Amino acid sequence: MPAKTDLSRLNCSLAGALSLVGDWWSLLIVRDAVLGVRRFSEFEQSLGVAKNILSARLARLVAAGVLIREGSERRPTYRLTEKGRALTPAVVALTQWGDVWVSGGRAPVVVTDVAGRPVNPVRLEGAQGALRPEDVRFHPGPGAEPGTRAFLALMAARNDE
Amino acid sequence: MPAKTDLSRLNCSLAGALSLVGDWWSLLIVRDAVLGVRRFSEFEQSLGVAKNILSARLARLVAAGVLIREGSERRPTYRLTEKGRALTPAVVALTQWGDVWVSGGRAPVVVTDVAGRPVNPVRLEGAQGALRPEDVRFHPGPGAEPGTRAFLALMAARNDE
Repeated sequence: MPAKTDLSRLNCSLAGALSLVGDWWSLLIVRDAVLGVRRFSEFEQSLGVAKNILSARLARLVAAGVLIREGSERRPTYRLTEKGRALTPAVVALTQWGDVWVSGGRAPVVVTDVAGRPVNPVRLEGAQGALRPEDVRFHPGPGAEPGTRAFLALMAARNDE
Repeated sequence: MPAKTDLSRLNCSLAGALSLVGDWWSLLIVRDAVLGVRRFSEFEQSLGVAKNILSARLARLVAAGVLIREGSERRPTYRLTEKGRALTPAVVALTQWGDVWVSGGRAPVVVTDVAGRPVNPVRLEGAQGALRPEDVRFHPGPGAEPGTRAFLALMAARNDE
């Protein structure tokens, strides 16, 4: 074990994701877009958000490539790009967590397939099937910087104690 | 179709979840705790966050039942509760999205099972197997309020157009 290990700031895709959609309103806007909301006035009514905040968040999501702005200048519509649609599993996973741990199991909204059958709770799956949260581990990937490698090695050593 | 439909603010488990872990730092703290970080100084170094902000966020996560504070008053440690561990699929889903759409496929951190085999990309699964984002629908659940029902009915009608 090294005498001193720097815990360097992780170079992290979660941090990258949160820099794009990591505030309250942005992820709720993505949720509304997944549900089918298209117009400024509909986002405004659904979210109960001030026009100037909504306007700024929509512009940021367009700049981030999560939404496309279409239609006329006066009555624009917004829809998810492929990048935006790819957030659906994360949005559903966080919503399901809220269903259990915040809404006390009484889900306001149920996510289903096109035939109306509820989707399964989102879970982690490995080669051998479902994984409990305590059964996952973390390793440096192809984008890992030296600080990330040192940090993960330190944590792995601790978890093996 | 009604002459006028109010788009009421959704009573929403996602909003509930975001009220607990919906700021940048809180979800990164949860990620660090999942990775094995326990001490204040380690969170501070890993995240590069000011002490006062970290202190406030840790206290909020403890109050929300996501973390437990243990150990001595002078050198406390923090670990995830069951409620906190249950955030793992959502954290991994958002991280994987960042791996693809922010880190350009070069993941800094790879999530694996205990044998080091990478977990599958988190996806939505229905009775018939994997679902694409465009193949999910939304229905009122047991906790739906009237405004939620009206909103979902309006969006469902639009998606069927």
